[in-house]
Amino acid sequence: MVNGLESLRGGQGAFVAECVNVLGEAHVLTDASDLAAHGKDWTGRYSALPLAVVRPGTTEEVAAIVRLCADAGIAVVPQGGRTGLCGGGVPIEGQPSIILSLQRMNRIRAVDADARTMTVEAGVVLEAAQQRALDEGLVFPLTFGAQGSCMIGGALSTNAGGSNVVRYGTARELCIGIEAVLPDGSVINALTGLRKDNTGYDLRDILIGAEGTLGVITAAVFKLSPQPLVRATAFLSVSSVKATVEVLNRLQDRTGGGVEVFEYMPRPAVEVICRIFPDIRPPLDEPAETGLFLEVASSRKDDAVLEDDGSVRLQTQVLELLQELMEEGVVLDAMIAQSDQQRAELWRMRESILEAITEAGPSYHMDISLPLANVSRFVDTMDVAAAELGFQPLTVGHLGDGNLHYALTAADGRDWDSLPLDRVRQMAFDLLLELNGSFSAEHGIGQSKLDVMRALKEDAQISAMQAIKRALDPQNIMNPGKLVPMD
Amino acid sequence: MVNGLESLRGGQGAFVAECVNVLGEAHVLTDASDLAAHGKDWTGRYSALPLAVVRPGTTEEVAAIVRLCADAGIAVVPQGGRTGLCGGGVPIEGQPSIILSLQRMNRIRAVDADARTMTVEAGVVLEAAQQRALDEGLVFPLTFGAQGSCMIGGALSTNAGGSNVVRYGTARELCIGIEAVLPDGSVINALTGLRKDNTGYDLRDILIGAEGTLGVITAAVFKLSPQPLVRATAFLSVSSVKATVEVLNRLQDRTGGGVEVFEYMPRPAVEVICRIFPDIRPPLDEPAETGLFLEVASSRKDDAVLEDDGSVRLQTQVLELLQELMEEGVVLDAMIAQSDQQRAELWRMRESILEAITEAGPSYHMDISLPLANVSRFVDTMDVAAAELGFQPLTVGHLGDGNLHYALTAADGRDWDSLPLDRVRQMAFDLLLELNGSFSAEHGIGQSKLDVMRALKEDAQISAMQAIKRALDPQNIMNPGKLVPMD
Repeated sequence: MVNGLESLRGGQGAFVAECVNVLGEAHVLTDASDLAAHGKDWTGRYSALPLAVVRPGTTEEVAAIVRLCADAGIAVVPQGGRTGLCGGGVPIEGQPSIILSLQRMNRIRAVDADARTMTVEAGVVLEAAQQRALDEGLVFPLTFGAQGSCMIGGALSTNAGGSNVVRYGTARELCIGIEAVLPDGSVINALTGLRKDNTGYDLRDILIGAEGTLGVITAAVFKLSPQPLVRATAFLSVSSVKATVEVLNRLQDRTGGGVEVFEYMPRPAVEVICRIFPDIRPPLDEPAETGLFLEVASSRKDDAVLEDDGSVRLQTQVLELLQELMEEGVVLDAMIAQSDQQRAELWRMRESILEAITEAGPSYHMDISLPLANVSRFVDTMDVAAAELGFQPLTVGHLGDGNLHYALTAADGRDWDSLPLDRVRQMAFDLLLELNGSFSAEHGIGQSKLDVMRALKEDAQISAMQAIKRALDPQNIMNPGKLVPMD
Repeated sequence: MVNGLESLRGGQGAFVAECVNVLGEAHVLTDASDLAAHGKDWTGRYSALPLAVVRPGTTEEVAAIVRLCADAGIAVVPQGGRTGLCGGGVPIEGQPSIILSLQRMNRIRAVDADARTMTVEAGVVLEAAQQRALDEGLVFPLTFGAQGSCMIGGALSTNAGGSNVVRYGTARELCIGIEAVLPDGSVINALTGLRKDNTGYDLRDILIGAEGTLGVITAAVFKLSPQPLVRATAFLSVSSVKATVEVLNRLQDRTGGGVEVFEYMPRPAVEVICRIFPDIRPPLDEPAETGLFLEVASSRKDDAVLEDDGSVRLQTQVLELLQELMEEGVVLDAMIAQSDQQRAELWRMRESILEAITEAGPSYHMDISLPLANVSRFVDTMDVAAAELGFQPLTVGHLGDGNLHYALTAADGRDWDSLPLDRVRQMAFDLLLELNGSFSAEHGIGQSKLDVMRALKEDAQISAMQAIKRALDPQNIMNPGKLVPMD
């Protein structure tokens, strides 16, 4: 056994030397501190040491490394900004792996302002891509908390969403072209930027959301949108969760689909934010049981026209609608931001929620989604059931697309460790299944939800995924142990 | 040999009897006239006789039939409205096949007006789905020529597009849930209607556009849109094909993404329409070398407000922009429909093009797409090259999404049969490849473009498709001989 292991280590040394041959010494990291740093993501919950961290600078170098790994039977763990929440971007114990960091593939290859597309490499930080679009007078609308450090490849591999999916779609819907290295080292060049292309199976969409288990996305083409000229930002108290759908539809119709942000912020979430951050004031005088934070935007010149009363037309439209909804009893109270500062305060409140929950004590977070029609049933049922078991749900969510970040904390005076978390979790998953919901909306599966995949995903779908995985990656070298249960 | 064939026929008789067992005699057609009718599509170019035409009425019956076929090694050819243009919905010679007609699966299972979704079975005729959405005060926006007889399953299996993809996307982008029977007879139940769901590989998108080669789509959930309250319809003469992108972007910005239709109608196309249909008048006094037919729509109440000058606000916005574009020399001339009748006349002109080309004489049609930035280079280069070889291009296209229907006819006085079609076709494909274009935008591959797939599609992509096909359909029983070259 010892000899066998020694010889494996010898083979691994030769393998690392081959990587150095391809990339040069500077881009094959083997220092213990580098291995440890890259071997864990920011959650700190999952970590394992790779044989090396390799940093290819071109698609050809990625392909060469993947071929080396295929020949040697070494696993490839593609890694971006390490902001994942599910352990998808780090190795697993017991599997000889390299981490293939995309951080040097950070070029914005092209921006076509006429066609409104942008071609970026996988290692471009999301915020840099957003900024470049702004510099060209356009918007790359993918927006979420990790944007300052997450990278494009990771955003595509998890089909990231965020707060304005309701208007612009997820990473998948923004992507109209892809370049990727498959597990055999072959390269797919499909950076076409075509709006219509039906020439065979949709390989782009099978790679997006695959968490690196079917290949390494090296670059992509994205649609860009016109910059909004004017916004209206508001916080509402709505009569019920069910009634929020009425608010959403009426607002969409009144503004021509202008809703960019439509966030559920119920009373307990607002209260914990204001408790942890005392300088944040509740937006309404009376606490809103069903609070909604929303933003509408328009790139139309006529929407930015100043009306006689000093407000711009888009805001007038929103205001008129809110008055109607209040007369109907659908909306109970509302405030519209009257200045950039008021808008910034509302945004700060929304963006403080995760930190507030974390500060407040132990918690368990679910990233789930439901058909819009079923959201209220889930929330109403679970809130009661969780409270009966001693939990205080602290929920927010991208309600416009049915995505809830449903966090469970201990109710006042209850000890977290004594609460029946498994039981409430099981109740939530059972209810999700019954209501056609999803147990993973936008954070992915990685390692952390493989058990839920096994338990909840339909057998026929798991079998089909396994068949596709085996077909494209017969050696199971691409990010093994993530996303698809292979046993 | 004769004995072997006889025994195969005997086995096939037993197989058909098993189908009757599952579906009843009324739904297993074996009359020669039925086999012949279902054995060809409306192009008449591709036909072969099936052993039987089976018409399951439920997903369970589809699954039972597919299992029978898997056991017997009989090919399954899913069939909808037989409106395909590429021979994808009929059997191929020499392969014992059944046609699995979805025509009895024609229920609209649910419409959720609040969530703005509709769940329909594969055999629902597109126009019936559109009508049902209208009845609910909403729009199912997928729109194209065959809508009166094509079925939802076929529209998804070819990822159909049409004239308003520029606003609403293709069939793929409208679909947010799917139910399908896989080649082993297992059923995927994913009619969730979720906007965000990341729980494994994107099986929905691999089935959409697969032309029935990976399974039978039996039902789907679609997004619905609000009904437009007001439209503006216009015909423009633009200074160049390149300048049309400027028109598109400015129009999108001015109307908040309101462009529903953006069609390229150059002078030769308009001329042939007016020649074949003498009651259709050219929309502008001076012929437009680069003609554009466009329509903008809005569901915003304030866009439908009557202005002081008697026009509605949306039309005022469009008119103002057109005046600016004319002052800049981007648009040379323009007419805006002032009545429903004028609008109907413009639409009739657009919809007459295929019939006009067909009437005018022999022709060859290409369904291609290009990045918006490259459309003008393709058109300008090919028009000159084709004219030099004796062709008259008669092109129209969904220019807003880079999709051209590029038809070649004989120039005046030239004999079609003597023209070098292969040469000009090869030139077009070479140019497409150079310009990152697609040789199949929205009609699919079927049988008719398998040779082009072999010649033009990247090897790595063909290999990946073959691997996926073999993984999910190891017996190659699902619509063999279509879409993916397996040899």
